[in-house]
Amino acid sequence: METTTIESAEVKAAVASLREKAPFVYGLTNYVAANLSANVLLALGAGPAIGSAPGWTGAFPAGAGAVWINGAALMSSVTPEALDEAAATAHRAGTPWVLDPVAIGAGANEYDAILGALLKHKPSIIRGNASEIAALAGGAGGSGVDSTLDSSEVIDIVKDLATRLDAVVAVSGEVDYLCDSAGRATAVRGGDARMPQVTGTGCSLGALSAAFCAVVDPFTAAAAAHAAFAAAGERAGRRASGTGSFAVAFVDELSDL
Amino acid sequence: METTTIESAEVKAAVASLREKAPFVYGLTNYVAANLSANVLLALGAGPAIGSAPGWTGAFPAGAGAVWINGAALMSSVTPEALDEAAATAHRAGTPWVLDPVAIGAGANEYDAILGALLKHKPSIIRGNASEIAALAGGAGGSGVDSTLDSSEVIDIVKDLATRLDAVVAVSGEVDYLCDSAGRATAVRGGDARMPQVTGTGCSLGALSAAFCAVVDPFTAAAAAHAAFAAAGERAGRRASGTGSFAVAFVDELSDL
Amino acid sequence: METTTIESAEVKAAVASLREKAPFVYGLTNYVAANLSANVLLALGAGPAIGSAPGWTGAFPAGAGAVWINGAALMSSVTPEALDEAAATAHRAGTPWVLDPVAIGAGANEYDAILGALLKHKPSIIRGNASEIAALAGGAGGSGVDSTLDSSEVIDIVKDLATRLDAVVAVSGEVDYLCDSAGRATAVRGGDARMPQVTGTGCSLGALSAAFCAVVDPFTAAAAAHAAFAAAGERAGRRASGTGSFAVAFVDELSDL
Repeated sequence: METTTIESAEVKAAVASLREKAPFVYGLTNYVAANLSANVLLALGAGPAIGSAPGWTGAFPAGAGAVWINGAALMSSVTPEALDEAAATAHRAGTPWVLDPVAIGAGANEYDAILGALLKHKPSIIRGNASEIAALAGGAGGSGVDSTLDSSEVIDIVKDLATRLDAVVAVSGEVDYLCDSAGRATAVRGGDARMPQVTGTGCSLGALSAAFCAVVDPFTAAAAAHAAFAAAGERAGRRASGTGSFAVAFVDELSDL
Repeated sequence: METTTIESAEVKAAVASLREKAPFVYGLTNYVAANLSANVLLALGAGPAIGSAPGWTGAFPAGAGAVWINGAALMSSVTPEALDEAAATAHRAGTPWVLDPVAIGAGANEYDAILGALLKHKPSIIRGNASEIAALAGGAGGSGVDSTLDSSEVIDIVKDLATRLDAVVAVSGEVDYLCDSAGRATAVRGGDARMPQVTGTGCSLGALSAAFCAVVDPFTAAAAAHAAFAAAGERAGRRASGTGSFAVAFVDELSDL
Repeated sequence: METTTIESAEVKAAVASLREKAPFVYGLTNYVAANLSANVLLALGAGPAIGSAPGWTGAFPAGAGAVWINGAALMSSVTPEALDEAAATAHRAGTPWVLDPVAIGAGANEYDAILGALLKHKPSIIRGNASEIAALAGGAGGSGVDSTLDSSEVIDIVKDLATRLDAVVAVSGEVDYLCDSAGRATAVRGGDARMPQVTGTGCSLGALSAAFCAVVDPFTAAAAAHAAFAAAGERAGRRASGTGSFAVAFVDELSDL
């Protein structure tokens, strides 16, 4: 499989375009990851707004350059109806949107059903860890928010799901794999073992994938986001002395890309 | 226009008084900015409590030294009624309170109307970026949470609004401008270009303006908060290597003021 | 009273066991402290999931190794019913759970009553500052979330409460005191004066106490969590230059334990 890195020409162009256009990107996400997600987007030049106050889900997805929806947004006052309205508004307005089905398949059936119902609004990108992607495809899930599968175990599921849903599907792990419905596929290597030890990195990857969607096509957007994370994680790992300083260095490295 | 800095006598006195009295300050804010806002207040000696659990909005504003209300609190379980109760309780108890109408004018009319209705409870200070202040005054707003106007473009609006609402009005930008209804006005210069690249800095400025209100008059409070932010931002900028380490250094510098 | 430190044999064993078993730990907490709480657990090897999306409170406490409930979770969409369901599910499933009655006794009677009603589900550990523990025992509380009492003033209350509720009760302060219903008691010294100046450290201590409950008995779990915090706080204090870098160094030191 082809490999994408931060040095790939299309990634360099996407990063430059994101900084130049500074798009408004709207997100519904959980409050554990919201702060890091916003800072990740700001580090690369995008202008994020997060959350669902009265009137927001019906208005902001139409004006935004892209939208991301993290399922665990349901743990704030974001109702299933608000989540649906945001996805529907984005789809109707032609705004690309990213679905991050965090913790799907971990045992909460009501939650899983709400996320599954969002697929009818045609997300441009779906991202998750191996357990989440497997669960979304109809298989068994993990426990909590951590994956009990390796990303390499679900490559075929990723390809099938991309075709079935006509979307880019990205699975993250030690190696990340990305496919679209036209058969394009790429792998992203790098990062650092401490990345999963910083809460919200996966969620922020969904947010950044959306931000890139505001300036390039979804496949390139997802590849650019994953390559940016891999590069920043690797560089941060070289100068961090623990998981606290790793998180700080990671945002520093994104802002220096 | 007169200029206020961290070296101004009234600012030095306000900082010393805040550390000495360590007031309890209550805030309703959004979960993206809540953590930074609390840490900013703690760095200067105040004791923050944030959020709306059952019974809090009717009780805490009366016992607090000051209150801040950030409109995007509506994205948590803070209902329009809870927001109104907090503002009304503060006003009735004589507790000074700060209104931060974040993202007003960005396209969500229902949200904008809820924030506008809070004005009847007489905030002591209103703060925002240029687009938000213009929208609150009845003009056009921006997109999302970022300003599409420069602070210098709204100086007249700031003066008018301060007179009309009998409140201190502060607009932040490359230069911050503050006016009160008695015609007092001051500018605050400094800060760092990375401040808007750290999520929640504006929201935290509203929180800190409230904290100072617990120990000095609202005009001095707002000036002290803006001057503290400008100084800490400038100093943090000298030793940061990206937006992640800038955020950490910014809180360090506030705690060292 | 006996003293527990990070060098105590049972603490070393508990830390090693936590890293080895990497249990899934489920928490309901407030959004101010959620990010730090998750990062503290990840730093020591546990896998946290936080919050209440549809179906979560009825499912996750049964599958988790331990649960923590921070009262201020009520400031998100966590209803009193969801809080009760999580505690009841944990109790029924035999999952140990920690109650952190943050801000109890600060003036919001409705809130206090909701937290008090959770005691029937038999928490394994109850932790708080001196004002909170005194309020839970039926005495006067503090203001906001900060304690107006010293931990040494409530030692007798801690002992009585532990016996009455058949739970480990831990009070944190300059010195931490822990008791169980069998008469075991220990003190934990150390930490740093900047710990209360970082928002969410107390809340994170409740989360970490729960994580240790997944691998050792509740008394040892609470002692290990408090000893880990004391050691990491002390070490972080030696290299921090303000409260911002203290928070980062604190997580680093936990991840290096």
